[in-house]
Amino acid sequence: MKKKFSGAEPIYLQVATGLEKLIGDETLKIGDKLPSVRMLSEEYGISMGTAFQAYYHLEGKGLIESRPKSGYYVRFSMRRMPGLPRISEPEAVASEVSVREMIRTVFGKLGKEDIVNFSVSAPPPSLLPAAKLAKSMVHALRSTPQQGLPYEEAQGNAELRRQLALLSFNWSGKNSAADVVVMAGCMEAVAMCLKAVTRPGDTVAIENPTFFGIFQVIEVLGLKALEVAADPLTGIDPDHLAGLIKKFPIKACVFVTNFSNPLGACMPDEKKRALVQLLTRHQIPLIEDDIYGELYFGRSRPRTCKSFDKEGWVLYCSSLSKSLAPGYRIGWALPGRFMEEVVQVKMMHNISSTTITQQAIAHFLSIGRFDFHLRKLRKALHTQCLRYMQGILQYFPAGVKVSRPQGGLVLWVELDKQLDAYRLYQEALKHDVSVAPGALFSAQGQFGNCLRISYARPWDKEVEEGLRLIGKLVAAQTRIRAVR
Amino acid sequence: MKKKFSGAEPIYLQVATGLEKLIGDETLKIGDKLPSVRMLSEEYGISMGTAFQAYYHLEGKGLIESRPKSGYYVRFSMRRMPGLPRISEPEAVASEVSVREMIRTVFGKLGKEDIVNFSVSAPPPSLLPAAKLAKSMVHALRSTPQQGLPYEEAQGNAELRRQLALLSFNWSGKNSAADVVVMAGCMEAVAMCLKAVTRPGDTVAIENPTFFGIFQVIEVLGLKALEVAADPLTGIDPDHLAGLIKKFPIKACVFVTNFSNPLGACMPDEKKRALVQLLTRHQIPLIEDDIYGELYFGRSRPRTCKSFDKEGWVLYCSSLSKSLAPGYRIGWALPGRFMEEVVQVKMMHNISSTTITQQAIAHFLSIGRFDFHLRKLRKALHTQCLRYMQGILQYFPAGVKVSRPQGGLVLWVELDKQLDAYRLYQEALKHDVSVAPGALFSAQGQFGNCLRISYARPWDKEVEEGLRLIGKLVAAQTRIRAVR
Repeated sequence: MKKKFSGAEPIYLQVATGLEKLIGDETLKIGDKLPSVRMLSEEYGISMGTAFQAYYHLEGKGLIESRPKSGYYVRFSMRRMPGLPRISEPEAVASEVSVREMIRTVFGKLGKEDIVNFSVSAPPPSLLPAAKLAKSMVHALRSTPQQGLPYEEAQGNAELRRQLALLSFNWSGKNSAADVVVMAGCMEAVAMCLKAVTRPGDTVAIENPTFFGIFQVIEVLGLKALEVAADPLTGIDPDHLAGLIKKFPIKACVFVTNFSNPLGACMPDEKKRALVQLLTRHQIPLIEDDIYGELYFGRSRPRTCKSFDKEGWVLYCSSLSKSLAPGYRIGWALPGRFMEEVVQVKMMHNISSTTITQQAIAHFLSIGRFDFHLRKLRKALHTQCLRYMQGILQYFPAGVKVSRPQGGLVLWVELDKQLDAYRLYQEALKHDVSVAPGALFSAQGQFGNCLRISYARPWDKEVEEGLRLIGKLVAAQTRIRAVR
Repeated sequence: MKKKFSGAEPIYLQVATGLEKLIGDETLKIGDKLPSVRMLSEEYGISMGTAFQAYYHLEGKGLIESRPKSGYYVRFSMRRMPGLPRISEPEAVASEVSVREMIRTVFGKLGKEDIVNFSVSAPPPSLLPAAKLAKSMVHALRSTPQQGLPYEEAQGNAELRRQLALLSFNWSGKNSAADVVVMAGCMEAVAMCLKAVTRPGDTVAIENPTFFGIFQVIEVLGLKALEVAADPLTGIDPDHLAGLIKKFPIKACVFVTNFSNPLGACMPDEKKRALVQLLTRHQIPLIEDDIYGELYFGRSRPRTCKSFDKEGWVLYCSSLSKSLAPGYRIGWALPGRFMEEVVQVKMMHNISSTTITQQAIAHFLSIGRFDFHLRKLRKALHTQCLRYMQGILQYFPAGVKVSRPQGGLVLWVELDKQLDAYRLYQEALKHDVSVAPGALFSAQGQFGNCLRISYARPWDKEVEEGLRLIGKLVAAQTRIRAVR
């Protein structure tokens, strides 16, 4: 059945306006797939070219977006977009870190399975290729007579290193197996690299806000943290950092350059290049935590600082914990000029990583399964991200500010200045809902009015109820404050 | 055919003297199994009681020994026993440690498989139950829908902790799953415990000589090592340590209490008790490295300091790397009163250990396979130990001194004072034989004339040739020195 068009406007525009209405009244919801161009042309009785034009028009307005090899999807509407969280203003002091107590409290609850958990930023098993990985594990058990019994090399399984080196081609890196050190996760990679380039008492620059795991490593190593303000969209500003380098004896930097945690910021290429040039000039090692790099929502993988590193001052760190198998504990470092030191520290620490899981992952990567899995995972996470955003807008009081991650696993939510997010966390927990309170993400006790919400869990009724509950608690706290 | 006996001596003594001759002329070699009591009685036409008496007599002379449920074996003859290595006299200084260069050199060669390797103290796959473990791994993969994908608890898999707690019953320990923290090997357990109880700059007491891995951890943590002389048979002397505690601000001790590495010393129970009392009185944490405890040659497992620990000052550390599966990287700690701190440090460091290997080992332990395997492994290592000792006596110049381990995996060999064991190591390597030079085992550069020889590899022609080669090189160095 062909639709009727008036003559006043071009046909593509009439089609687009119709679709826009459907998006506006949420007949088409955020994350929904739009009909294919062929289907649209058939449905409206228009040419394929006109159908394309309609979609281009909507894409231009930011209402929909195309995803590679997948089609068009409803995107977050600019009209309904919440404000961005502010850029932080950390005090310029190098401080010793201790948020132990709060981390223990929040993470002690991790084991409980009956909780709606927005605080863990790792994909749930339902999004991961459990059966395929198990096959690779069985293959590893069968492929050598030793069946994973002996120690592996301290630097890591040679075939796994080769496969991990190949991954760097995705971000314009040129690395070989000899450049890779296998670690038991990204956290260990960061800890070992940081240990290799610092001595107790040294000052280390980190983003503000940043992942609390980094504070913990800094505390364990007896270092001092200098928190550097990060833009919610573009991350660290090299010019700002240049100023701090003049004032503080910075011995190393630890930055999450792609889809930072919790902000979701992604440094543009030119900033990455400028950062590497700045740090190379000052001979300051950059530990680049790229654990989220493969979880991009856009058309292509963002580059890394490592890809601009000519003199080896970037120690690249990543892992498969956010993208494939948290429990396998497979991470790696590309330590550049600090290769020897890093291998040494790893060996001193736990001799080598588990043998059989290294062999299994090497096999999984070698048969091309990882790429296939990542394509599915990215789509799922992108849709979840948009769905969670919509949920927050729907259930939280007006004025809430939300980050705009273009990848990764978390949203950063800024509430009214007066709100106490840690109390919110405690109250939500009574209802078996867990979020990460913002204060976890600063060494100076900032972000008391923020929350980090992971969208790793696929959207379902419980997630919706969980967000609705937090929204209610926020509203209640706001009202109490208003009455006082 | 019955043998004839004269009337001059009791029959049991005549039988014993006959056997003694066979041992003396090496018709019966060290480690050989003697006929069963029943066979002996039939062969000599004597009663079972007389046969028993003959064996008791030889056992009393230290020529043979009974092994539980296995029978009698030729033991090292006291007559041919080499001298014991001397007790060291380390300088009483707390020193910063660096033996990096030498460790890198020696351990860089570990990967090469065509080497006769006396420097690694881990059992080879041929002595380990590879197929049974693989079955447990497949069981673990099949027993949960998540198949090892999610993070495990930071403290470790609950069932594995329960099984590891049960192992402490072997040494009169009473521990439950709640007392255990799973670690990625014993080295990590020691590092995490040491980190939990010290700050950079603190002084830590260690044995002299001691395993170089401990120096490395001390170096990584920015600590100072105070080396304490250890007796080659009975280890650390609590009275001597008491004197040092008065002079030095010792903040922690790290001792291998059972079958120390490299000496093979085993602290008697009364010394263990006295040590725990001393350290409890001074509130000094003892990190007890018991990695070799299950590899005893005697009738029963030696106790641990932990078994005498009433107030929680002992942080017990062990692993399955020397007894079951080096590549699985499964160790554990019983941190006593420092439980919270140790879990914290572990979590800060690498979040948790590999999930699937924890599940697999929990299964393997739960079906009783470990006990069965250990009984076989202990017998094999005991025989290998004696065979290697014999080889050293046979091929090394007279006057060589050798330790008398009653368990574990290594022999400590003391050569002429003038000898340079590191040069020896280098020369042996040219012939594809690797030993661990003694200087690796001291922070002060002692033991330059010592070697550590692992008897983990079952005796074969190549092992014999390897020992013969080292013996030759020792003799050559001795001659060169004599000529000069």
